[in-house]
Amino acid sequence: MLDYPEFSFDIHHTDSKSKARLGRLKTPHGTIETPNYIFCGTKAAIKGLSPAQMIEARTDIILSNTYHLMLRPGADLVERMGGLHKFMGWNGPLLTDSGGFQVFSLGEGTMADEIKGRNRGHDNKNLLEITEEGCVFRSYVDGRKIKLTPESAMEIQRKLGADLLMQFDECTPYHVTKDYTARSMEMSIRWGDRCLVEFERRDNGAQALYGIIQGGVYGDLRRISAEYTKDRPFFGTAVGGCLGGSDEEMETVVAASLPYAHPARPVHFLGIGKIKDVFRFVRMGVDTFDCVIPTRLARHGTALLKGAPGESINLNNARYREDQSPLDEGNNLEASSSFSKAYIHHLLKCEELLAMQILAQHNVATINRLMREIRLAIKTGTLDALEKEWLGS
Amino acid sequence: MLDYPEFSFDIHHTDSKSKARLGRLKTPHGTIETPNYIFCGTKAAIKGLSPAQMIEARTDIILSNTYHLMLRPGADLVERMGGLHKFMGWNGPLLTDSGGFQVFSLGEGTMADEIKGRNRGHDNKNLLEITEEGCVFRSYVDGRKIKLTPESAMEIQRKLGADLLMQFDECTPYHVTKDYTARSMEMSIRWGDRCLVEFERRDNGAQALYGIIQGGVYGDLRRISAEYTKDRPFFGTAVGGCLGGSDEEMETVVAASLPYAHPARPVHFLGIGKIKDVFRFVRMGVDTFDCVIPTRLARHGTALLKGAPGESINLNNARYREDQSPLDEGNNLEASSSFSKAYIHHLLKCEELLAMQILAQHNVATINRLMREIRLAIKTGTLDALEKEWLGS
Repeated sequence: MLDYPEFSFDIHHTDSKSKARLGRLKTPHGTIETPNYIFCGTKAAIKGLSPAQMIEARTDIILSNTYHLMLRPGADLVERMGGLHKFMGWNGPLLTDSGGFQVFSLGEGTMADEIKGRNRGHDNKNLLEITEEGCVFRSYVDGRKIKLTPESAMEIQRKLGADLLMQFDECTPYHVTKDYTARSMEMSIRWGDRCLVEFERRDNGAQALYGIIQGGVYGDLRRISAEYTKDRPFFGTAVGGCLGGSDEEMETVVAASLPYAHPARPVHFLGIGKIKDVFRFVRMGVDTFDCVIPTRLARHGTALLKGAPGESINLNNARYREDQSPLDEGNNLEASSSFSKAYIHHLLKCEELLAMQILAQHNVATINRLMREIRLAIKTGTLDALEKEWLGS
Repeated sequence: MLDYPEFSFDIHHTDSKSKARLGRLKTPHGTIETPNYIFCGTKAAIKGLSPAQMIEARTDIILSNTYHLMLRPGADLVERMGGLHKFMGWNGPLLTDSGGFQVFSLGEGTMADEIKGRNRGHDNKNLLEITEEGCVFRSYVDGRKIKLTPESAMEIQRKLGADLLMQFDECTPYHVTKDYTARSMEMSIRWGDRCLVEFERRDNGAQALYGIIQGGVYGDLRRISAEYTKDRPFFGTAVGGCLGGSDEEMETVVAASLPYAHPARPVHFLGIGKIKDVFRFVRMGVDTFDCVIPTRLARHGTALLKGAPGESINLNNARYREDQSPLDEGNNLEASSSFSKAYIHHLLKCEELLAMQILAQHNVATINRLMREIRLAIKTGTLDALEKEWLGS
């Protein structure tokens, strides 16, 4: 029986007014405080930031995407290079997903459309086949046909060598029928069991596996899937799949899932991470988030800012042309405090890479500050007040 | 009479076997040891590197291009933002050119083609007129017609606020006649005098002006131009313009210029800076170099390396796919030592920005190391041995 001796999750405080909780998640590469945010190093790199810059921005944990890494440079190469930690120079806790999400829904596209329900079906032309065994898709790198199964997803993640792994699952689109969603969720359950068998077969104690709750937007299916993950020896629980088209629907789906998940395991919310989402779902008991937003917004000239309407400001806006004020003096980060908005505006107009680097590090530092302040607010029972400070009243 | 009380240049050692010399160039923003290398922050930013990263790479001095800055964001805006040092967050010595080089030859193009004689004439379609008064060109930003004169070039550089300024000159293409080159060089002399008048009129001691030696590939014209700069109260001397099509021709041109320049003033070589050029022209008495090569090569996946054939290696090459060795452990820089060649190769294949950032910082640090080692070798009389270490025997 899997027992993950090198890992632990201790909940040491629970909010009196919500299900928000403070935890410590221990991995072989360090212990993180939760709630926390896992930054996306999609192709074994955070876009525009070195590991040293991530640490300067007080980052605790990052992830990388199995789908991209299996295609390039390949899991075998990463293993020969000493594993993903060594390959990318990140010595802290590291998570990989299973590859399924991108295979099923995206190809090289974006996650937000899928999670938010803006994708109308399995319209990824690179996805060739889904069967009980697994799926076959075409590589966007070289056109090769590639089969991904629960067993190979485990093998690949074992070779990559991250601390936290995800089971292989089918991620169903938003607009499929309940009948399709139910059959898919049941297959993901069988795939989860195959993942557990394969994981345990090669387990050396260095990795821990999360089960994933699927079931689309249907509460009864979510409950079945959540109870499945609870009953199996997963280390953690992830909420996956399509979460509905609106904030309310997303909240309903999570509310239908988490009460039936294992109460003592860490809960990860896959692909969600706007500031308002973090506040909402921390209160529902989510421990970790991941999202590409911090670095993607940076590439579009947008800075996340505490208290800004809509969470952020767009430095491309002409109003910043002569604004001598620094981006943010509250972040305790040189990138946030040592350049004026006017300068960053100028860099964006000139398409200078430095703009994206400054904004990426600023955004990562801002989210890490958000999570530190959220943890403090849970401890002191002041989450509501903190949310007003961040999002406005 | 101009006397630059806040500036000085002291030559404290001269090589016994060449004209190489060790100097100290003092500016209001710090003193640099020479020979040294001035890195190009073309549009008020080093491509891919923050000022903090430049300092980590042990950079002493940078430059920015008046031509680009006058078009965007404009000299008035930079002045209102407190000047270029404050605007871009660089508190060390800073140089601006006059804008003439880009106006006359390049539009938005590259410098190397022009300097190396691969440009066949004033074929920049944005250049509308050259007269005794100055020139008129069209902005690549918004299509406006803009007049640049010796007086306005001084005014713009005064507003930008760099430490070291360049006179306005006409940069003649490689393939024009000797007659055109002579008339152009004579006009640049008259322009130099107008620059001196305008510079002195607004001089507040915070800036120092370089004269520029023109005269194309013609030794007799170079001598006239060099003697002109010597006889006028410029602080420093720059070698500008087209320097011929081959290494030999470039060397001939410099040999025809520098013996007639002021022996006690700092000599800057405009736009030249391959490692082999640095060794060659340090021996001829050049004190500072500038070139976009370190950061441009980085954007193409190329790392400058001590001892590498051709000065550099291209990390795109498949031979580096599984090369676990670090880029360079001799640089004393985290970016050089903490990533494997295999990882950088992977980043390049994925077009990750991080590859360019790592290579840019590595290349800058490598050039700064080159200059430190050159200064030490001049002191110890071992320049020949050092050149063999860098370029191979």
